[in-house]
Amino acid sequence: MPSAADTPSPPSVDALSGIQSYVARTLQRVQDRLEAQTASDLPPVQRLVRHVERYRGKMVRPTLAAIWGLAARPDAPSLNLERHDAPENLVIVAAVCEMVHLATLVHDDVLDEADTRRRTATVNRLHGNETAVILGDYLLSSAYHLCCQTGSTAAALAIGEVGMTLCAGELLQLHHREDFSLDEPTYFEIIDRKTASLIAVACRLGAAAAGCDDPAMAARADAFGRMLGVAFQIQDDLLDLTGAEATVGKSVGKDVEKGKLTLPLIHHLAAAPAARRGETLALLADTALPAIQRTAQLREAMSLTGSIDHARSVAAGLVSRARDQLTDLPDSPARSTLALMADAVVTRSF
Amino acid sequence: MPSAADTPSPPSVDALSGIQSYVARTLQRVQDRLEAQTASDLPPVQRLVRHVERYRGKMVRPTLAAIWGLAARPDAPSLNLERHDAPENLVIVAAVCEMVHLATLVHDDVLDEADTRRRTATVNRLHGNETAVILGDYLLSSAYHLCCQTGSTAAALAIGEVGMTLCAGELLQLHHREDFSLDEPTYFEIIDRKTASLIAVACRLGAAAAGCDDPAMAARADAFGRMLGVAFQIQDDLLDLTGAEATVGKSVGKDVEKGKLTLPLIHHLAAAPAARRGETLALLADTALPAIQRTAQLREAMSLTGSIDHARSVAAGLVSRARDQLTDLPDSPARSTLALMADAVVTRSF
Repeated sequence: MPSAADTPSPPSVDALSGIQSYVARTLQRVQDRLEAQTASDLPPVQRLVRHVERYRGKMVRPTLAAIWGLAARPDAPSLNLERHDAPENLVIVAAVCEMVHLATLVHDDVLDEADTRRRTATVNRLHGNETAVILGDYLLSSAYHLCCQTGSTAAALAIGEVGMTLCAGELLQLHHREDFSLDEPTYFEIIDRKTASLIAVACRLGAAAAGCDDPAMAARADAFGRMLGVAFQIQDDLLDLTGAEATVGKSVGKDVEKGKLTLPLIHHLAAAPAARRGETLALLADTALPAIQRTAQLREAMSLTGSIDHARSVAAGLVSRARDQLTDLPDSPARSTLALMADAVVTRSF
Repeated sequence: MPSAADTPSPPSVDALSGIQSYVARTLQRVQDRLEAQTASDLPPVQRLVRHVERYRGKMVRPTLAAIWGLAARPDAPSLNLERHDAPENLVIVAAVCEMVHLATLVHDDVLDEADTRRRTATVNRLHGNETAVILGDYLLSSAYHLCCQTGSTAAALAIGEVGMTLCAGELLQLHHREDFSLDEPTYFEIIDRKTASLIAVACRLGAAAAGCDDPAMAARADAFGRMLGVAFQIQDDLLDLTGAEATVGKSVGKDVEKGKLTLPLIHHLAAAPAARRGETLALLADTALPAIQRTAQLREAMSLTGSIDHARSVAAGLVSRARDQLTDLPDSPARSTLALMADAVVTRSF
């Protein structure tokens, strides 16, 4: 456990404005690079690519890459962030991580038969599943093409590997759909691969692109991103069960509808007495009842076994362990910002 | 035009057996490398990957890469092919081209709602569209991961670029579905990107992996593969219109069913008198009539404008231009085999 002295201190207003300026300038370059890389000389392809830009959200992965590219530097405490520019290789790996993420969103929308994303009609709704499948492939190929442009194969190998990892995680999840005997280790295996692996690689490649070739630093960045990613997914699953649609900003109760077991439900099924367990299983199988009603009844059942609190405490524990990875970093505004971002993962309600 | 003396001579029986031995050994290594690369520690993923191996057909792309890796060498005439082994980088790029091709097959089957491929149930039929989409992504990511393992970024960049190119070609084709005003330049744009580009890159990277860094040789290999690829697609389209299902080995009349205009039909619509053109358009739009019947009537209409012969002669012209690319190569069994393969593209009936 870190001592109080090791705990990152909250950044000052000045430091925060420096970080904000650096992140905003870096994300603008990431966006420019992404647009240039995905551009097509064929107008129908170009229109599709431009449409997908509307899916862009908080750009969590590029932001983490950008900040790790500061925090890992020995000179992090003394950098003038109003003027410091991220190296081009950092911009490239940040854009690549975002492009891989965008490709998975386009394909997820086909899988989920989703009509809207971020208040925009999905590609599958506007142009059909065929176009959405191939557009996702185009984005994935663009990402791989871009990540060969750092001048070394290290980043490209890492991205190829993480692409395989996240698809394997998604395939494992599909394999366990409607599997009400799913256990916690398998659940963690799934979200570690499908969500946490890409966030981990964004942090790690961000640090590496800033010139940090210390393996211990790479391991810290990776572990920070991985634990944050798992916590992030648990929080996402919690919001799907407990959130209000208006606050979350997307439909809730989707996991129950898709037959996806998440941490609170897995805990509940393991902890509930046999009779109660039977009732919950019957409720999960009762597809005639709308998912929103089933979700409400499940919430009630789970409160009896403390399963929501269990999932919240697992996520909080992961965030705390992610913060532990920061203790050996030089004390800098970047380090403080990473700590704040970690906390925000479990306090967010959207 | 090449003089008679420049035309590759048919290979002797001995030379042919040497080439066959070399190709068989190389393809075995390609297959081993492909299996090792796509292997997963997750049993459900591993089962899916093993299933897709049954889709493997003639392995046209790895075969072309392997033979170009001989034909481009200055010492090609004197190599002992019973003993000569392809360099490992050639095996890698050949496997990568096959994996990209396999990924497109898995996604094509989702697009076409196909139930069988090579007498095997498709992944979408067995496990649903979701699993097929993500499995295709897994294969694509595996291909990109493997192509970073040649030790240089050149091959990886070429594969990333060709991945974007072939997706863009497919998107352009989807955009023009049911577009009965599609013209020849756009048709060629589509098949150049979606089919010929990957075959061209297989030839080019095969030559490069054998140590040929002469840009003129790379250009010849690329042009050979590109013209062969376009001819191959025209022949495929012809077989869909004129072939017998039992000979072709897959369902015919699919293009009409999917609203895909191909070369003979484009020529017919441009060449037919207005009244005849109107009848053909009405026939294409009459989706109530089974595709197989519409295809039969279209064949009749096209015979009036000589459109089948036109497409055949375009394909034959491309094959002849592909063969022209071989004239400056050293006279070797590999060069003769490339010439035979080119001829086979337009003489095949399957």
